[in-house]
Amino acid sequence: MYKIGIDFGGTNIAAGLIDENNQIIQRTNLPTRKEKGMEGVCEDIATCCATLTEQAGIATKDISVLGVASPGTINSVSGVIEYYSGMNVRNYPLAEKLRKLTGISEVRAENDANAAALAEAVVGAAQGAAHSVTVTLGTGVGGGIIIDGKVYSGFNHSAAELGHIVIVHGGESCSCGRRGCWESYSSATALIRMTCAAMEGNLISELHTIAHQDGKVSGKTAFRAAEAGDSAATKVVRDYIAYLATGITNIINIFQPEVLCIGGGISGEGENLLVPLRKLVDGEQYARTTPHKTRIVTAKLGNDAGIIGAALL
Amino acid sequence: MYKIGIDFGGTNIAAGLIDENNQIIQRTNLPTRKEKGMEGVCEDIATCCATLTEQAGIATKDISVLGVASPGTINSVSGVIEYYSGMNVRNYPLAEKLRKLTGISEVRAENDANAAALAEAVVGAAQGAAHSVTVTLGTGVGGGIIIDGKVYSGFNHSAAELGHIVIVHGGESCSCGRRGCWESYSSATALIRMTCAAMEGNLISELHTIAHQDGKVSGKTAFRAAEAGDSAATKVVRDYIAYLATGITNIINIFQPEVLCIGGGISGEGENLLVPLRKLVDGEQYARTTPHKTRIVTAKLGNDAGIIGAALL
Repeated sequence: MYKIGIDFGGTNIAAGLIDENNQIIQRTNLPTRKEKGMEGVCEDIATCCATLTEQAGIATKDISVLGVASPGTINSVSGVIEYYSGMNVRNYPLAEKLRKLTGISEVRAENDANAAALAEAVVGAAQGAAHSVTVTLGTGVGGGIIIDGKVYSGFNHSAAELGHIVIVHGGESCSCGRRGCWESYSSATALIRMTCAAMEGNLISELHTIAHQDGKVSGKTAFRAAEAGDSAATKVVRDYIAYLATGITNIINIFQPEVLCIGGGISGEGENLLVPLRKLVDGEQYARTTPHKTRIVTAKLGNDAGIIGAALL
Repeated sequence: MYKIGIDFGGTNIAAGLIDENNQIIQRTNLPTRKEKGMEGVCEDIATCCATLTEQAGIATKDISVLGVASPGTINSVSGVIEYYSGMNVRNYPLAEKLRKLTGISEVRAENDANAAALAEAVVGAAQGAAHSVTVTLGTGVGGGIIIDGKVYSGFNHSAAELGHIVIVHGGESCSCGRRGCWESYSSATALIRMTCAAMEGNLISELHTIAHQDGKVSGKTAFRAAEAGDSAATKVVRDYIAYLATGITNIINIFQPEVLCIGGGISGEGENLLVPLRKLVDGEQYARTTPHKTRIVTAKLGNDAGIIGAALL
């Protein structure tokens, strides 16, 4: 038997056919036609499913599960999108619609960050850990919590908004309406803001050279300039990692997960990021004296985490 | 059958005999003789057990479980105190020792804050909720997490240090070695610090009158002076509740528990505290649009939570 995993986002619907070893063996995707609403999204997901089975030369009856990872508040029990602000969706019966459109009887849905955390826990960087947390450092800071091998999403399916833990009371404005959220200090967006501020304050800096070469300021600019020995960039990277360590230490003091995976664009810095981060967290965490400490690692599945996690639901 | 719950702390060993309705029907206690070490503590716990059975006219064989709530890192599977800084204890086999000393075959142990959270979940203010969090506002800020009716303590039994979530990056020094922990802004200790600072800055204030009447500055001073209309006190209370709301909103964004119980000395302010707190949290929490919101309530069991929670282990 095979599974299909769908990672539905604001710009793209990515689909994968998953074999019994939880490997993606076929892929397809379609752009998200927001203007067609959720009915259009469901039709496109059904088209992706048909494409995958056709590519693999199998039938719908060979698919045991269709799983969908979606942004927003997803009721994983009923398969309903309770709320997704990006398309202004409320109480949309995603699983029910897809059952009808695809003929696959077992359809499940989950929040995309939660699905990605599940994928890391089952086949990724947190494999074998009963309790793990995955944090993604991208446009925002996302989170997924795995407890006893299962997604934890609270009593209302809205938990694990780890980016929206305030770490600077009264600090930077966040898109969620609060001030000082971790997301406003540890997302790629925040790093770009800090990099731009350093560029304004340091007109002669490697930061300008690298941004000019790349045609833009990105989450990589400060890391590359710091590697070249630029002092303004070094300070940006140091400050960024200090904020990141504050948030990661918070998560560890709360959850003491066996593994904490860091994904998203910024995690591409790998050990450049993790070595100084682990040092700060080691010095700060509450349970410094225990021999059993959380392992902080780079997430393994990258953009595939949503597809694989969806198939594992 | 009966159960015995022990709440062992730095100054006192409180013991209760619990009936089948989870009510405390007999009580006893002994001071903690720190100088005698854990051997002395175990002897005194055994003495408490003997006193309770004697008072009730029952035999040891009528006790199904002896549960102990202890400060520190407690391995609830093995019943070992892995670390308790207050008595410099490492890897002490508490359950094993107590089995031998008391003759009760089923002995369990858990961290005291976790046990208190379990008690609130089973017979207290969070009764009926699968997921709940209990936060205690006392000398420090303590926490206990209940997920699917069970204590969550991470892979190393050290989780739920909710007071040690940094909410002010680089802020006030905390006893844990970090700066800006929630505990440093929302404990009774923090409230007293803020009250003293306001008294220094406002030599004519009701704060002085009330502190003089009480013979000390306490966690109640600012609340009483604010009730009397004092402006400096009103600002202290407002600032305190703003910090508290930041921390409570963090917990809700992370866990979305059905119920969040607030215990500890400051919770004695009841609705004086909770009404403005709920208002701030309502405006700040991420899942503002969901109809299913966390209920924020005062913990119900007070000082009995440790004893009852221990018996429920």
